[in-house]
Amino acid sequence: MSKTTMLSTHQLLHDDTLFPADASILPIAQRLYATVRDLPIISPHGHTNARWFADDEAFPNPTALLIIPDHYVLRMLYSQGIPMESLGIGVNDYDPRAVWRIFAKNYFLFRGTPSRMWLDYTFSRVFGFTERLSEKTADEYYDGISETIARPEFRPRALFDRFRIEVLTTTDAPNDSLEDIQKIRKSSWKGRVLPAFRPDPVVDPDFAGFRENIIRLGEITGEDTSQWKGYLRALQARRAFFKSLGATSTDHGHPTAQTADLSTAEAEVLFIKIFSGRADAAEQELFRAQMLTEMARMSVEDGLVMQLHPGSVRNHNLLIFKKFGRDIGADIPQKTDYVNALRPLLSRFGNEANFTLILFTLDETNYSRELAPMAGHYPCLRLGPPWWFHDSPEGMMRFREQATESAGFYNTVGFNDDTRAFLSIPARHDVARRIDSAFLARLVSQHRLEEEEAYDVLHDLTVGLVKKAYRL
Amino acid sequence: MSKTTMLSTHQLLHDDTLFPADASILPIAQRLYATVRDLPIISPHGHTNARWFADDEAFPNPTALLIIPDHYVLRMLYSQGIPMESLGIGVNDYDPRAVWRIFAKNYFLFRGTPSRMWLDYTFSRVFGFTERLSEKTADEYYDGISETIARPEFRPRALFDRFRIEVLTTTDAPNDSLEDIQKIRKSSWKGRVLPAFRPDPVVDPDFAGFRENIIRLGEITGEDTSQWKGYLRALQARRAFFKSLGATSTDHGHPTAQTADLSTAEAEVLFIKIFSGRADAAEQELFRAQMLTEMARMSVEDGLVMQLHPGSVRNHNLLIFKKFGRDIGADIPQKTDYVNALRPLLSRFGNEANFTLILFTLDETNYSRELAPMAGHYPCLRLGPPWWFHDSPEGMMRFREQATESAGFYNTVGFNDDTRAFLSIPARHDVARRIDSAFLARLVSQHRLEEEEAYDVLHDLTVGLVKKAYRL
Amino acid sequence: MSKTTMLSTHQLLHDDTLFPADASILPIAQRLYATVRDLPIISPHGHTNARWFADDEAFPNPTALLIIPDHYVLRMLYSQGIPMESLGIGVNDYDPRAVWRIFAKNYFLFRGTPSRMWLDYTFSRVFGFTERLSEKTADEYYDGISETIARPEFRPRALFDRFRIEVLTTTDAPNDSLEDIQKIRKSSWKGRVLPAFRPDPVVDPDFAGFRENIIRLGEITGEDTSQWKGYLRALQARRAFFKSLGATSTDHGHPTAQTADLSTAEAEVLFIKIFSGRADAAEQELFRAQMLTEMARMSVEDGLVMQLHPGSVRNHNLLIFKKFGRDIGADIPQKTDYVNALRPLLSRFGNEANFTLILFTLDETNYSRELAPMAGHYPCLRLGPPWWFHDSPEGMMRFREQATESAGFYNTVGFNDDTRAFLSIPARHDVARRIDSAFLARLVSQHRLEEEEAYDVLHDLTVGLVKKAYRL
Repeated sequence: MSKTTMLSTHQLLHDDTLFPADASILPIAQRLYATVRDLPIISPHGHTNARWFADDEAFPNPTALLIIPDHYVLRMLYSQGIPMESLGIGVNDYDPRAVWRIFAKNYFLFRGTPSRMWLDYTFSRVFGFTERLSEKTADEYYDGISETIARPEFRPRALFDRFRIEVLTTTDAPNDSLEDIQKIRKSSWKGRVLPAFRPDPVVDPDFAGFRENIIRLGEITGEDTSQWKGYLRALQARRAFFKSLGATSTDHGHPTAQTADLSTAEAEVLFIKIFSGRADAAEQELFRAQMLTEMARMSVEDGLVMQLHPGSVRNHNLLIFKKFGRDIGADIPQKTDYVNALRPLLSRFGNEANFTLILFTLDETNYSRELAPMAGHYPCLRLGPPWWFHDSPEGMMRFREQATESAGFYNTVGFNDDTRAFLSIPARHDVARRIDSAFLARLVSQHRLEEEEAYDVLHDLTVGLVKKAYRL
Repeated sequence: MSKTTMLSTHQLLHDDTLFPADASILPIAQRLYATVRDLPIISPHGHTNARWFADDEAFPNPTALLIIPDHYVLRMLYSQGIPMESLGIGVNDYDPRAVWRIFAKNYFLFRGTPSRMWLDYTFSRVFGFTERLSEKTADEYYDGISETIARPEFRPRALFDRFRIEVLTTTDAPNDSLEDIQKIRKSSWKGRVLPAFRPDPVVDPDFAGFRENIIRLGEITGEDTSQWKGYLRALQARRAFFKSLGATSTDHGHPTAQTADLSTAEAEVLFIKIFSGRADAAEQELFRAQMLTEMARMSVEDGLVMQLHPGSVRNHNLLIFKKFGRDIGADIPQKTDYVNALRPLLSRFGNEANFTLILFTLDETNYSRELAPMAGHYPCLRLGPPWWFHDSPEGMMRFREQATESAGFYNTVGFNDDTRAFLSIPARHDVARRIDSAFLARLVSQHRLEEEEAYDVLHDLTVGLVKKAYRL
Repeated sequence: MSKTTMLSTHQLLHDDTLFPADASILPIAQRLYATVRDLPIISPHGHTNARWFADDEAFPNPTALLIIPDHYVLRMLYSQGIPMESLGIGVNDYDPRAVWRIFAKNYFLFRGTPSRMWLDYTFSRVFGFTERLSEKTADEYYDGISETIARPEFRPRALFDRFRIEVLTTTDAPNDSLEDIQKIRKSSWKGRVLPAFRPDPVVDPDFAGFRENIIRLGEITGEDTSQWKGYLRALQARRAFFKSLGATSTDHGHPTAQTADLSTAEAEVLFIKIFSGRADAAEQELFRAQMLTEMARMSVEDGLVMQLHPGSVRNHNLLIFKKFGRDIGADIPQKTDYVNALRPLLSRFGNEANFTLILFTLDETNYSRELAPMAGHYPCLRLGPPWWFHDSPEGMMRFREQATESAGFYNTVGFNDDTRAFLSIPARHDVARRIDSAFLARLVSQHRLEEEEAYDVLHDLTVGLVKKAYRL
């Protein structure tokens, strides 16, 4: 891979990308960004695979690395009539170069999307390309990336270090043995990869294998998980296990933000019905609601920071789900209520000193209406960064514009990359730093903040608030 | 009409209207716009009257041309306490010049609205005025417009050609004979005026004359429309008739986006009850929901592109409706759900290769939350342009900012003017081209798109995507 | 207070604060703002205390003046874990200087919030500080403010005159004697302080002391308020009393915008049940709904302008409410419907010539979807300015961007400061004038409005529309 990484006139990624072009703001944004561009990456929430760092094997090929695991890429190509099978999904075998050529030919579809920005960043800064991906350059890209990822300095651990990642948190099921995490800890490599406790498989009755997961949870912990109290003890035990391996947080991916505060007697009865598989949809929702409050209670006790990611209608396209499974771009956001839904949980634990609950949303209408006002009052609440479809330049800017005036900066927690696509991590953090620089530069240009203050705030958004909120 | 059309220092419409004034963006916007300014107009959805082009008679007077049919104008004047009767509405006779003077005196009310922009464009570019309409210039305008529209080169067909309209689609009831369309086709004039199939009068039980409309539908088609299957066959027959006269699309104006997927037996029972007039509100809603899915099925079969315009509470002001009838500015948008409402239809036909469903909304919160994520996944879905109250500079810009990052540009369909006001068509397309130029110029200025790419995208938004989506 | 009020290079408040820095817009904004900067303040809606102006006593100390009554300040400090008690809330005694020091040390938390802007304006323009508040300057500030407010020219009446307040409206319970208002009217001071009729304590069954309030209402008016008709007559009498003391408006703070239009017989039955205390939540909501329509009816008769402020979940944090009471920052907005909720009231009185209903919202999604379309049609409706959490630079700009295109400027009513914090009044009006100048300057820079027109509009937004809408 002999391509230069120097920026040319036809560079894929301009130095001033995402900054306002206005001459009265641009220099401020440039100065701000320069102070955080090279800071280490703190990635407290995401979906990378700890096995990559445990085994440290080379990535197989460009398609397996950059297309197959990227639901943003799959969804856009599918939306334009390209069959999933031709992208290597749902087939026993596929030709990675053929898939890559389809991707390259249709790369123009990503114009105006964050995927285009993340990919160009990766192509430019990691692989050194200077000409944009297209049908014409498809093979040049494929060969160049193939050659690069075969080299030792592009193995997962080397990239982790090269990307200046200080902490990387994965997301793990409660029954997971965390053997990859343990292997990393026992290795000579110093990279800090932490698990996060995601109990959806044992608290959401809709989750595939729910009952079996609970039985397995009992086997692992030696608790009688067919009973409410044993079930709760088992969860506490697994949280302690995760914590012993470095976890500082939990994560909860519910369809709504509904919480409940049942008496122990009510909860016991509900659990028996849920475990029996005879509960209806309303009871399943009530159970999930109660479990959020139980998880909050455990967080008050063990200090694990709680994250809530509600509002996604999973597997909306049933045909796609049946043929190809989950997480390939067929989840769609829905309206989400927080103000009423969270009240039972907040009435119990909202004023606890040792409790942090980080809220995310796919319904941007909540930024100014519910989330910022709530985070600007409750001591336990913090606002997570724009999530999923809204983890984009315009989405991030809307978040700052709509949340800051009621929540301030200090009730937010910096950036999460939330990604399965390891190579996109530096790109995503770079976009966040650029947008925060652009937003702060506008405030400075309008005399709403002094430039000296903006440096402080930007550093806090990049590092300080992340570490504080996630207790890292 | 002796006034110059040269732009003066007090011109009504500046060359740079709607472009960002920022010197780092303005020249890019100017260059982009210059490449599409004079492209032909493709108008695939609107409410002009085919009779104008069939008969090609002169428009009667300025008031009948520009005020009476424009619900935007009527609503603003009425909101400020001006009685409908004084505007010529709901009275047997009125003095058009007197109405015009009221309008002129109150023209300042339209400051900051798209109506003001459309009207000034028309006054300037079509009629050549250079001084703004006001109480002072009321008669000068009235006389000038009267004189102009009496001339042959301002007849409907001449204006159609002068406006460089390549295709103009009307919206027609299923029982309509389309005689005006037929007359145009048989004439020597080459203007392309196409019908669109809008079955609301026979699929919405709330529509005035619903039962009679269905009976008439049976008479026209020779089917027994008192039975479910005959009713469906009759609809198919009318779709075929519309298609034979050039139609490429259908349009559906439901209060919600609710769809259903009943069994044939359930649908037959429901239809009988609906046709009998004994159905309650929930059954009427279910019937509309089922009919959207039936219409989708027929589109899969006959290839007519389907458009859905949900979310308007029609005739909200009951007094106004009783006294003056529909479509004079008393319809109000309401919250609209798509993610759950469309699931039955999409579960049946969402992955069909020969199906296109174009979605519109009056609830802008859906752009980023539901519509862009859905259009960015389902191969059948495309996003219609900002509609009605949102067909405005700020509204269009919000659409691009909120929809592009998840849907891309290529899951959108360019612009619809959607108008009853024929003379506003060039103005509306010009506003759309300017806003798209401004949006793309910002992306280029922030290095998110190369200028060469922006030219491609802009051309596609203006012509290519319209023709492709509407199969023109 | 020896500090200079001249602006220095380290001034707290720059002359161009909030204006776009872009050189193509800034000079226009400056020119516009210069024409309204020094206009008198019309404050037609707020929560200042008439007693301040009746008694004209010096404010006690900086903490009692600027921290204790400011729920924006309390909520932000509490959200970051600072106990209410340490801020002087819920304790019998507190050290005002100690509270001030906590505030000063944490002043950085307000970066990016409107509170920071209002406070800096007050510190700079009223008290003459030039160095920002911080831990270091805490005592200097405390001593300087203490010294200043002890001086005669900083008594309430002197400040009222100094702030160029032309009208200041308070908000008062129907049983209030308005003795402070009467005392002001009888004094030699010419300041115009008007009451507003806020009947929540006697129309909202959830209000603390509801039944006792109704009994007391009967005693005051000599009506039998245990019966529907006597209750209505008593309300009419109190409205007349308020009007006799200068009131021009009423105000209604309901949890939703729901209205109803019951028959007299239905209303009588409902009232008896409500008054008996046996009504359930749905009946209480129906009663509030009916009372909005009754209040509209009375407004049609007596000409008092009606204001509706719906959508706040009051006292969301139950622990805080139990320990410290209401109005200290624990109210949270919720989704609000207008299009269906207001229909019963509007069907009765929406087209009345002598009726004005000013609508506010905490749910910004309504600006473009429901409120602007409704205000752009119904002659009785006007849009109030951005409220509470949205009374902020970004919030105000969103309001103009999202409401203007459908409602125009002339269906809005200028600015309300809505404050309990007397000293923030000039700051809040200044922010509104700056944002309106910035918005109009952008329209002018994009050739959507001529500069001459923008001057007119800006003056109307600042003075003309306020006086007209509130009948002042």
